[in-house]
Amino acid sequence: MTDDVRRESLFTIEATPVKFGAGAAHDAGWEMKRLGGKRLFVVIDPEVQRLKIADHVLDSLRGAGLELVLYSDVDTEPSIEALGRAVQAAREANPDSFVAIGGGSTIDTAKVANLLLTHGGEIMDYVNPPVGAGKKPPSPLKPLLAIPTTAGSGSEATTVAILDIPDLKIKTGISHRYMRPAQAIVDPELARSAPSAVIASAGLDVVCHAAESFLSRPYTTRERPATPDDRPPYQGSNPVADLWSAQALRYGGQYLRRAVQSGNDVEARGFMMLSATMAGVGFGSAGVHIPHSCAYPIAGLKHQYRDPGYPGDKVFVPHGFSVIVTSPASFRFTFDADPAKHLRAAELLTGETYAPDDREALPNALLKLMRDVGAPSGVAALGYDESDIPALIDGALKQQRLLAVAPKMPTRDDLDRIFRESMHNW
Amino acid sequence: MTDDVRRESLFTIEATPVKFGAGAAHDAGWEMKRLGGKRLFVVIDPEVQRLKIADHVLDSLRGAGLELVLYSDVDTEPSIEALGRAVQAAREANPDSFVAIGGGSTIDTAKVANLLLTHGGEIMDYVNPPVGAGKKPPSPLKPLLAIPTTAGSGSEATTVAILDIPDLKIKTGISHRYMRPAQAIVDPELARSAPSAVIASAGLDVVCHAAESFLSRPYTTRERPATPDDRPPYQGSNPVADLWSAQALRYGGQYLRRAVQSGNDVEARGFMMLSATMAGVGFGSAGVHIPHSCAYPIAGLKHQYRDPGYPGDKVFVPHGFSVIVTSPASFRFTFDADPAKHLRAAELLTGETYAPDDREALPNALLKLMRDVGAPSGVAALGYDESDIPALIDGALKQQRLLAVAPKMPTRDDLDRIFRESMHNW
Ligand SMILES: [Fe+2]
Ligand SMILES: [Fe+2]
Repeated sequence: MTDDVRRESLFTIEATPVKFGAGAAHDAGWEMKRLGGKRLFVVIDPEVQRLKIADHVLDSLRGAGLELVLYSDVDTEPSIEALGRAVQAAREANPDSFVAIGGGSTIDTAKVANLLLTHGGEIMDYVNPPVGAGKKPPSPLKPLLAIPTTAGSGSEATTVAILDIPDLKIKTGISHRYMRPAQAIVDPELARSAPSAVIASAGLDVVCHAAESFLSRPYTTRERPATPDDRPPYQGSNPVADLWSAQALRYGGQYLRRAVQSGNDVEARGFMMLSATMAGVGFGSAGVHIPHSCAYPIAGLKHQYRDPGYPGDKVFVPHGFSVIVTSPASFRFTFDADPAKHLRAAELLTGETYAPDDREALPNALLKLMRDVGAPSGVAALGYDESDIPALIDGALKQQRLLAVAPKMPTRDDLDRIFRESMHNW
Repeated sequence: MTDDVRRESLFTIEATPVKFGAGAAHDAGWEMKRLGGKRLFVVIDPEVQRLKIADHVLDSLRGAGLELVLYSDVDTEPSIEALGRAVQAAREANPDSFVAIGGGSTIDTAKVANLLLTHGGEIMDYVNPPVGAGKKPPSPLKPLLAIPTTAGSGSEATTVAILDIPDLKIKTGISHRYMRPAQAIVDPELARSAPSAVIASAGLDVVCHAAESFLSRPYTTRERPATPDDRPPYQGSNPVADLWSAQALRYGGQYLRRAVQSGNDVEARGFMMLSATMAGVGFGSAGVHIPHSCAYPIAGLKHQYRDPGYPGDKVFVPHGFSVIVTSPASFRFTFDADPAKHLRAAELLTGETYAPDDREALPNALLKLMRDVGAPSGVAALGYDESDIPALIDGALKQQRLLAVAPKMPTRDDLDRIFRESMHNW
């Protein structure tokens, strides 16, 4: 960019209304009634349903006199086919409102079903370009009440749904402000039974959201869009997003290890849920970039990783693991763009202070956290070897929407180094 | 309260969507169109209209093809009669949406006109009990786009409108989540021409909002309500509200002096506007208490103060001055409830650190800021003497809705000491 380009002078911030606290999910019926719902399409994680973790939530909805259609055919890291089934079921049920009870995959499924039920068409019409047609929903969707049962995606606080398109070997998303849930209920009691590996992956995703948002390029360095319509959802770091991201980093450093150790540590799991929501608000405004760009091909290219700590037998790379593995090398690469802010991110995570030239401070803080919570050691452990790197680079470079807010734009060579350094982090 | 009372375990947080930055008001037409408006009732501060400060905002609205009905009969710190006139005018105009361009009084006028146009009835039906009937609006109001031109009330971010009822010698409010504007545009360029005294009073209001919210009793110490309906809007301090309040305190300490000195210091006025919005989000969740309770009778009981720095010849106590004058004594009184948090508030304001037993740290930080920006020296300067104290105490004690989140509930004797200490702060 040249100096005569007009720089951006604005940023926007929106946050999903949140009710937070142990027992909050008992208010599900009251909140849904307040939102005007009468006939609900309830997307529920199959494990949550099987283990009866949310029966009191369903009771609360029924107790408020609401009619429920349950749908639990939720794919982990959902494919476009799985989402299509949910859309079909929602169209048959024809509800006036949606409820999602589960992790990011469940909430994303409800978002897509709501979008297609409200505005018609095919899923690909709305998928972010260049993969899809990037059509914008013309008016708000039906109310969605999001009730997360893991501390991770922050989907309850974001305007995005992620989907896997196996035919194209790609993961991508649908992103629009109308996709934001009308209300979130974040209740730590619901995360009690989540397996440690799920909490670990989800929590590392939170830490990545927060670190990437906090270190994204300042919004004032972007080119000013020609019209407000052209302003991207991911705007770069700004003073309000930074507040959310910084606090999510603090909580991640303080509570993730404890949350992984025990489901009964409701305090730690609660703060990780709060952290997930906060990081969701932060990255919904500032954006994520290099580690998430690398994660899409890591999760989409090969399907041969099976995490021993995850329930079920689906072969897939848990999202949090797919993002965290390249984060040390990514932040080593971006250090020069703003050394002080990288050190600040490390300080927020660890509570320690660092020398001004310590470019390994943040990578080391992330590596220690990864090892402590049992993350895979690198890209190799997820099923890739060095011969896969060119294809991984191609996949990462497709995520220009994300890379646009990277503090430093990586070249092919830079990504080559990042993937190489991330093969074996230890 | 006894130990067998069930304690609150939940808090809620909502934030108005905000577009922030120099030039943001040029997007007014785009935002209003996005909100679905066609025929707009535009409440505009008469000085803003006279000085043509917002002509480009009106042009942006007209340029988007929207029909405008302008209304500028806005009272500073509006009386119920003035609000009634606005309601009448809105009913005659019959708009589908509202825009407010001005300070807190202007935004509050638009909120009340919107409420009454949407749901009918009389203003007193909705006024907080015991003064009014506390009726709740049954469904959302029409969209309100709030565009503040001062850095103060935070009304763009809150669910409250404040009104003066001279016949009852009382100030009170209307408070409901549906009163929250649908969108705020916060543009520092619009605050350029605000007089220094207006910036000073508004900025001290911001600092009070932030300090009171930050130091309000923790939400977990409140009694748990019987039903979600009974949960009060002011819930006490919580981890999310604290983020907003803390940052507003930081900005207040860093930028208020500069913002008062020069209208051309767009950076400082911009950060004070952002601070006002952040503090609005914070106190919209946590709540304000003793200084605001004392401010209502200070502003409502006598009408004989005329601030030399304010435009026009209306005799009234600017809201920010009415709250800040009792804040040093109030926080001296509440210190024992949480000494560490009081010291933290002082640190956020000044950037300095204090000894753990320094109960004057926060009062002194506030006194210094008040003197530096030219605030009145105390309650006496606003027209009261010691013989007025019993009536002032009566007025403050009427604000039980606010005092309920005070870190320590003041008795009559405590309030007597607070008013006495606040007569002459220097
Ligand atoms: Fe993620
Ligand atoms: Fe105030």
